[in-house]
Amino acid sequence: MADDQRTFGVAVLGAGRMGLTHIRTLAGIRSVHVVVVADPDPAAAERGRGVARADRATTDAFDAIRDPAVEAVAIVTPTSTHAVYIEAAVTAGKAVWSEKPIALDLVETTRVVESIRRSGQPVQLGFMRRYDPGYLRAKERIESGELGRIETFRALSRDTYPPPLDFLRTSGGLFLDMAVHDLDLARFLVGEVEEVQAWGANLVDDRFAQAADIDTAVTLLRFRDGALGTVETARHSAWGYDIRTEVAGAEGKVVIEAGQKTPLTFSRRFGYEGDHFENFPDRFAVAFQRELEAFVAAILAGETPTPGPMDALETLRLAVAVTRSWSEQRPIRVADVQA
Amino acid sequence: MADDQRTFGVAVLGAGRMGLTHIRTLAGIRSVHVVVVADPDPAAAERGRGVARADRATTDAFDAIRDPAVEAVAIVTPTSTHAVYIEAAVTAGKAVWSEKPIALDLVETTRVVESIRRSGQPVQLGFMRRYDPGYLRAKERIESGELGRIETFRALSRDTYPPPLDFLRTSGGLFLDMAVHDLDLARFLVGEVEEVQAWGANLVDDRFAQAADIDTAVTLLRFRDGALGTVETARHSAWGYDIRTEVAGAEGKVVIEAGQKTPLTFSRRFGYEGDHFENFPDRFAVAFQRELEAFVAAILAGETPTPGPMDALETLRLAVAVTRSWSEQRPIRVADVQA
Amino acid sequence: MADDQRTFGVAVLGAGRMGLTHIRTLAGIRSVHVVVVADPDPAAAERGRGVARADRATTDAFDAIRDPAVEAVAIVTPTSTHAVYIEAAVTAGKAVWSEKPIALDLVETTRVVESIRRSGQPVQLGFMRRYDPGYLRAKERIESGELGRIETFRALSRDTYPPPLDFLRTSGGLFLDMAVHDLDLARFLVGEVEEVQAWGANLVDDRFAQAADIDTAVTLLRFRDGALGTVETARHSAWGYDIRTEVAGAEGKVVIEAGQKTPLTFSRRFGYEGDHFENFPDRFAVAFQRELEAFVAAILAGETPTPGPMDALETLRLAVAVTRSWSEQRPIRVADVQA
Amino acid sequence: MADDQRTFGVAVLGAGRMGLTHIRTLAGIRSVHVVVVADPDPAAAERGRGVARADRATTDAFDAIRDPAVEAVAIVTPTSTHAVYIEAAVTAGKAVWSEKPIALDLVETTRVVESIRRSGQPVQLGFMRRYDPGYLRAKERIESGELGRIETFRALSRDTYPPPLDFLRTSGGLFLDMAVHDLDLARFLVGEVEEVQAWGANLVDDRFAQAADIDTAVTLLRFRDGALGTVETARHSAWGYDIRTEVAGAEGKVVIEAGQKTPLTFSRRFGYEGDHFENFPDRFAVAFQRELEAFVAAILAGETPTPGPMDALETLRLAVAVTRSWSEQRPIRVADVQA
Repeated sequence: MADDQRTFGVAVLGAGRMGLTHIRTLAGIRSVHVVVVADPDPAAAERGRGVARADRATTDAFDAIRDPAVEAVAIVTPTSTHAVYIEAAVTAGKAVWSEKPIALDLVETTRVVESIRRSGQPVQLGFMRRYDPGYLRAKERIESGELGRIETFRALSRDTYPPPLDFLRTSGGLFLDMAVHDLDLARFLVGEVEEVQAWGANLVDDRFAQAADIDTAVTLLRFRDGALGTVETARHSAWGYDIRTEVAGAEGKVVIEAGQKTPLTFSRRFGYEGDHFENFPDRFAVAFQRELEAFVAAILAGETPTPGPMDALETLRLAVAVTRSWSEQRPIRVADVQA
Repeated sequence: MADDQRTFGVAVLGAGRMGLTHIRTLAGIRSVHVVVVADPDPAAAERGRGVARADRATTDAFDAIRDPAVEAVAIVTPTSTHAVYIEAAVTAGKAVWSEKPIALDLVETTRVVESIRRSGQPVQLGFMRRYDPGYLRAKERIESGELGRIETFRALSRDTYPPPLDFLRTSGGLFLDMAVHDLDLARFLVGEVEEVQAWGANLVDDRFAQAADIDTAVTLLRFRDGALGTVETARHSAWGYDIRTEVAGAEGKVVIEAGQKTPLTFSRRFGYEGDHFENFPDRFAVAFQRELEAFVAAILAGETPTPGPMDALETLRLAVAVTRSWSEQRPIRVADVQA
Repeated sequence: MADDQRTFGVAVLGAGRMGLTHIRTLAGIRSVHVVVVADPDPAAAERGRGVARADRATTDAFDAIRDPAVEAVAIVTPTSTHAVYIEAAVTAGKAVWSEKPIALDLVETTRVVESIRRSGQPVQLGFMRRYDPGYLRAKERIESGELGRIETFRALSRDTYPPPLDFLRTSGGLFLDMAVHDLDLARFLVGEVEEVQAWGANLVDDRFAQAADIDTAVTLLRFRDGALGTVETARHSAWGYDIRTEVAGAEGKVVIEAGQKTPLTFSRRFGYEGDHFENFPDRFAVAFQRELEAFVAAILAGETPTPGPMDALETLRLAVAVTRSWSEQRPIRVADVQA
Repeated sequence: MADDQRTFGVAVLGAGRMGLTHIRTLAGIRSVHVVVVADPDPAAAERGRGVARADRATTDAFDAIRDPAVEAVAIVTPTSTHAVYIEAAVTAGKAVWSEKPIALDLVETTRVVESIRRSGQPVQLGFMRRYDPGYLRAKERIESGELGRIETFRALSRDTYPPPLDFLRTSGGLFLDMAVHDLDLARFLVGEVEEVQAWGANLVDDRFAQAADIDTAVTLLRFRDGALGTVETARHSAWGYDIRTEVAGAEGKVVIEAGQKTPLTFSRRFGYEGDHFENFPDRFAVAFQRELEAFVAAILAGETPTPGPMDALETLRLAVAVTRSWSEQRPIRVADVQA
């Protein structure tokens, strides 16, 4: 990390569970000074302020955004508020780091991306897997040419526990909420997708059907350069958080497959067990740190942070295409999905 | 194995590479007496006779089938001859073990299955993976209910080297020749498939396109009981024979994934390597033995050997459905595929 | 395998559990004709004859050895009888394959080795691990020089279940009965051992102490060329048969570590299990076959089979040195251990 | 982490590579205020001050210790200075966290331990493996009784690169400098050791012999409760940092074996490679953080931090016993090793 003594002021919007995680990370970056923590719940805001050793707490996100000491805004609020806060922040001339997505809707996302473009402000979105050391190394291997021409992409994601029902109704559905991470990896590791076909089912829990959603899905991908892919997505897993991705090419393959949380294996009665990851904050703890460090480093260096608004837009377009393929029961060309 | 002293006479048709493998296995089963080895090439037939310590060799398969000392016929000839030899054998009142498929065509297969039914003769087909110790244990686990309701099936097969061009033209194509093993496993481990969707590409070698075939494919499966599946199939692999299958349910998952041929790992310069399997005779050596032992044991015990003609027919129907989905670029209901 | 049509006559002495395993292997080698099976128990002998499809059964081992149709004798009898049968066989001009050891005593072993030498007959001993595909590949890697100068040898052996008490009293003790396989691997993979130091304990079962034996031990090895080694030995294992060996050199290491019997992994509730090996016939099934095939191939080719009498003698000397180090509580130079 | 708003002042002595690592960790703990960074090199001290956002830098460690704003001293200086700084700090009424060892000599260590006892100050030593998530979970498993009675301990440590020659001369030798971590784990996971026997060799590099040291060693351990152990230690590794530890009991075993730095496996040409750890800061990055967090948490909570001075003394005694066993070529009872 650079020895640059410059620090810059950050506002954090949202001091829930992930908010506190991000606040801790930001507080640990010496070039960052957390100016203000905003949360509609005053107790949460105050707690966040304490963790951040911030100057002040507020229940008004716009108050935090406007603070003249704030140069960058970190948005960890519910999805439905991302768009308005991003627009407010860039309009106010602030850099932005925001949890994904910008919005669950292409029209709104396109409008925000345009606002960002006009503002000229740097904006980074929280597709944190791109900062996982495993995926980063995979990307390096692929870009070095060691795998040769890429032929197939293969992803599987299983969350340990199904989400609460009230979350489901605003989640955007299985593909926009959950498969979107694998779809983003497909774009990150292999490239743009031309066409998709998805099938879904309700096998895990009746509540998904009640929410007009599915809990299990399989998807085909055809990449622009001709490679093919499959994605398996499921909302629960009896054996722990299960995230596996592989990319195979003419000369080699990479497999990113985090089976164990610690290097311990315990064996007894002809069986053995490792310490499995329980969920995404657990599996991607390092990625959650690295993405913010990268954002701060980019801002300080005057470089464009990544992944940016266009990645958010294109990954959303892909996820919408997959959702449409499932609901319309036919293959969908991604380019045909327009706001 | 039973101590029954009874032996019975077997004719082996075909003394090529796989023929010799099967002859060695049969010669090692003490209740088997190889009566005759048939091959159009007299030298191959004679060589097979020697390995089998058989009574005689012949260049005429029908002569071997008719031999009164022959009670069972093992067919290891080119695919295009399976149907006629199976029909001749069952008509002559002989039990049959044959390499899969019966035929590459539903009409012909249906006709042979009917001939077998009328003959009342026991017939077993060589879907050898069903006798691999890994898949057998997986089947036991699934049938015990330990996995709970099955949710997803996930298979990947990569051959190490692409097949020779002249084989390609009569192979039946990627799905009937290669993916058929994963499709058979889908039926074996999970159950009947209702609908399929396949996408293919030519990424490995131009010769596949010249043969109007593809070399890479991804397929979606929807099982009758609601489970979903994906299959990835590719005609080459720089890292060795790569066959992986998994079945996930509400309570657990099984993964069958043979990474290493021997229990040796060799490490150097921050890398490591195991002894990889090179191809199917290598990976499934035990299965190739077990399927013949099981056939012999079933015949001696007067039981119906498995997998039988209806498995051959239904797995073919599934593979034809996948092929049609690829060529017609639409989902195909398996039940709509009729002779 | 050679196409040589020559077959030769074999007598098998001993038709217990391992005897039947070896009889099945011999019956499966086409150049072998099992002439006679001997066992003091007439029913066992007759059963062995049936499995071998042998000409006859006998309760008299010497009768079997003398049979003029017998060219080679396979000895699978209790340890205390190996020496006398080996001597009788080589004196009668027969080739010999015998389970290890020749004897548990250096004086007797030396005398038998001398008898063998005088007879000029080929004799192979059953250190079957030398024919396990993992150890064979390890040996190749080491001999190719890929590991560079060898620095350390590291072995661990844990049997699943402790042996029966009546076996213990005649077993020769933990080092001669069980650690001897790791000591033989040390010689096979690295070379001759110069000095040893062993410590033992009774942690598993009181019966071992009652038999004046130990059930757990750790041993240091110093090889003649300077490499160092450790061996851990224990008479039970709650998690299944556990045999692991590694050799590390300046440029690389090999690890031979058979964790799984089948390529299946079953996962549930944050744990997973493979199909573990239960015991040595299970783990080394292939090695038990290969050692007999190698013996037959060597005899037919007129080559010296291996491992031979000198290996048996030197591995015994090493095991006696380790036993003495444990009982005398001091380091022992292997060369000081003389008959 | 507690929400306690209290912060306390820390002096860091030493701003070399590991010093900066620890400074970054301390700067990230919100209850810590780094008051002063001391290093004989003014540039290093100033750099450390910047990283810590500390109030001031100094070249005088005693000046830092005496600072009234300093409540705790973190010592990351060369080994030879640990004792004097620890004594100065506790005498001045400061809490201490120090890199291990207190000293390389039992007399000096005993004297410092006595000074600490008289001062009543809390002191924690940097045996960081005790804070690795793998070893912590292993400890929990063992203490829960899940392994049953412990029978064996088995450790292997291989550094990637041999240390520089000038370090060798003051390192205390292979056992005090390197094996000491495995010996500390033996005490941490299993319990006190009664007797040891070590053999050493020079296989890696002539410089070790020139420094009257060895580069490769194997050691036997006998624990007070009867368990047995082996330790393999080597100063280089062509295949990357190799640290493996296992503890086996009557009912189960734990294996701590960190093979991969990231969850990526790259396969090609029948080989595969993971991202190996390169060295201890790499493998134990989390442990280096956790040990300081634990120290701070203990001080704030008024609890005794661990591992403390007696652990440092007893682990040193064990390492001295092993060294003596090697140099005197005989088993050594640990209790016989007195200052």
